[in-house]
Amino acid sequence: MYAITIPEPGGPEALVWAEVDDPVPGEGEVLVEVAASAVNRADILQRQGFYDPPPGTSPYPGLECSGRIAALGPGVSGWSVGQEVCALLAGGGYAQKVAVPAGQLLPLPQGVGLREAAALPEVVCTVWSNVFMIAHLRPGETLLVHGGSSGIGTMAIQLAKALGAKVAVTAGTKEKLERCAELGADILVNYREQDFVEEVRQATGGAGADVILDNMGAKYLDRNVRALAVNGRLAIIGMQGGVKGELNIGALLNKRGAVTATSLRARPLKEKASIVASVREHVWPLVADGRVRPVVDRELPMPRAADAHRLVEDSGHVGKVLLVTP
Amino acid sequence: MYAITIPEPGGPEALVWAEVDDPVPGEGEVLVEVAASAVNRADILQRQGFYDPPPGTSPYPGLECSGRIAALGPGVSGWSVGQEVCALLAGGGYAQKVAVPAGQLLPLPQGVGLREAAALPEVVCTVWSNVFMIAHLRPGETLLVHGGSSGIGTMAIQLAKALGAKVAVTAGTKEKLERCAELGADILVNYREQDFVEEVRQATGGAGADVILDNMGAKYLDRNVRALAVNGRLAIIGMQGGVKGELNIGALLNKRGAVTATSLRARPLKEKASIVASVREHVWPLVADGRVRPVVDRELPMPRAADAHRLVEDSGHVGKVLLVTP
Repeated sequence: MYAITIPEPGGPEALVWAEVDDPVPGEGEVLVEVAASAVNRADILQRQGFYDPPPGTSPYPGLECSGRIAALGPGVSGWSVGQEVCALLAGGGYAQKVAVPAGQLLPLPQGVGLREAAALPEVVCTVWSNVFMIAHLRPGETLLVHGGSSGIGTMAIQLAKALGAKVAVTAGTKEKLERCAELGADILVNYREQDFVEEVRQATGGAGADVILDNMGAKYLDRNVRALAVNGRLAIIGMQGGVKGELNIGALLNKRGAVTATSLRARPLKEKASIVASVREHVWPLVADGRVRPVVDRELPMPRAADAHRLVEDSGHVGKVLLVTP
Repeated sequence: MYAITIPEPGGPEALVWAEVDDPVPGEGEVLVEVAASAVNRADILQRQGFYDPPPGTSPYPGLECSGRIAALGPGVSGWSVGQEVCALLAGGGYAQKVAVPAGQLLPLPQGVGLREAAALPEVVCTVWSNVFMIAHLRPGETLLVHGGSSGIGTMAIQLAKALGAKVAVTAGTKEKLERCAELGADILVNYREQDFVEEVRQATGGAGADVILDNMGAKYLDRNVRALAVNGRLAIIGMQGGVKGELNIGALLNKRGAVTATSLRARPLKEKASIVASVREHVWPLVADGRVRPVVDRELPMPRAADAHRLVEDSGHVGKVLLVTP
């Protein structure tokens, strides 16, 4: 098969479409013939040499895919060859075939096309596990999402609205904020021109955000704590603004707040399978009835992964950028 | 009645035993004739002028007491005059009488004397709400408690052991660590001579602590994150080592960890009542059957509160220091 390889870490040009060995599905795994994968920021870090795949997983980038089951490994039941699926991956989605632990497969949701289904697994599992399974966002509460127009952001807006929460977002342009509003966001903050702490406070009658989904890490840590409501939960899933930041414990204590930080990729198979099962139970029905939709910015042929990376690195997109296998 | 007043904030001598007006129990409150109160670090901060009582609460220090019900305010049921109780207070325990919201009363546990019952409410509610209700310590997990010989520490050791966890403690002397061992602590760390990160790591086969109960705040923040196990929870309840500290978000994310910070005093009545109810259901039976006991360092007459504060400020005690009303 062909896959995007990284002979040497570096810029987008480091991504090379090359012939490689087919993966072989192991015990409890399924071989998927990939229809599409999608770009995540973690793929860019991996390309740059900063985020190696976990031991024993595919060396190729790609944390999600959609496609058809081509073969079942030993000990797999409940899935059949030819079935259309999408999947959460520890890597290897930028390829014509990938071996996937069966617990990370999801059936195609009703009404979603085969290629666009590749836009769902990573963002749905990330948002669901952080905002709902860990931070327990409740109906009537306010969620603040940084990067509201990103893949994660567009999914967080839709899921939180579908489940009865109020949603505040930050983004860097008027156009992106308009897209967030179309998806249901109630409070729009242009982070280039406005202070999100003040805007969220005013829009919530002084209360602040009950849950914050953050991809910035250190740069926003102090402001995020200030933007939290009493009993608020800050869920950090990225560190685009740095790894180490000053935590005002006094401010957190006054709010009886919580700060959590997680990543999906490094979780043990059992935890991933439990998240995927919860997504299938709670989120898939919302996708099937159209209340939550994949948001696809554009599709590019997988051999042009470098162009897709440039687009995401420049934040020139809204939602997900797909890579379609030739 | 008489109470410990603070005419001017300052050192221990700022505490003055003086005649004041009797409190009047309001709607949903009970008047308790105080048998004993106990010293908490928050009382010292209040004495120094750094921790004012919440609006509408007693101006006198004292976050817990034991005693007899002297009168019922309007709308109180389920309690009777003359009944022996102990209570979680927002303040006012250093006095001959105190008005208490009925939701913060607890019956005297079987086998516990009236005065020594004053050693229970604050530490039991703090440990139970943080270690169990928030951090969800589970049987077989490891709890690290800083200040293992303090009131909080001695209670945390007993509760965690009673519920099947392994317990690590830090303390500053061999004698204090021995007392912790007698209460059931498994892993003893002298923080003056040993690195708790390394000691806990070694004693847990490299895993680290699943839950950490911390009273140091900033000074221990980085080391606490390093001492956490995967999926670990750091519960901060004090800031004796400073308010602002550097948080290594990358390290927290690699562990999928959580940092929470809470105080009990500022919580709304409803939350306090819910904690007290949970304590009555889950902890009181352990006290009644002797598996969890109040640990009293000594009793002093309440007018000598200054001496009691000096003792606690010098960390010359193990467990709780009681103030007995004359």
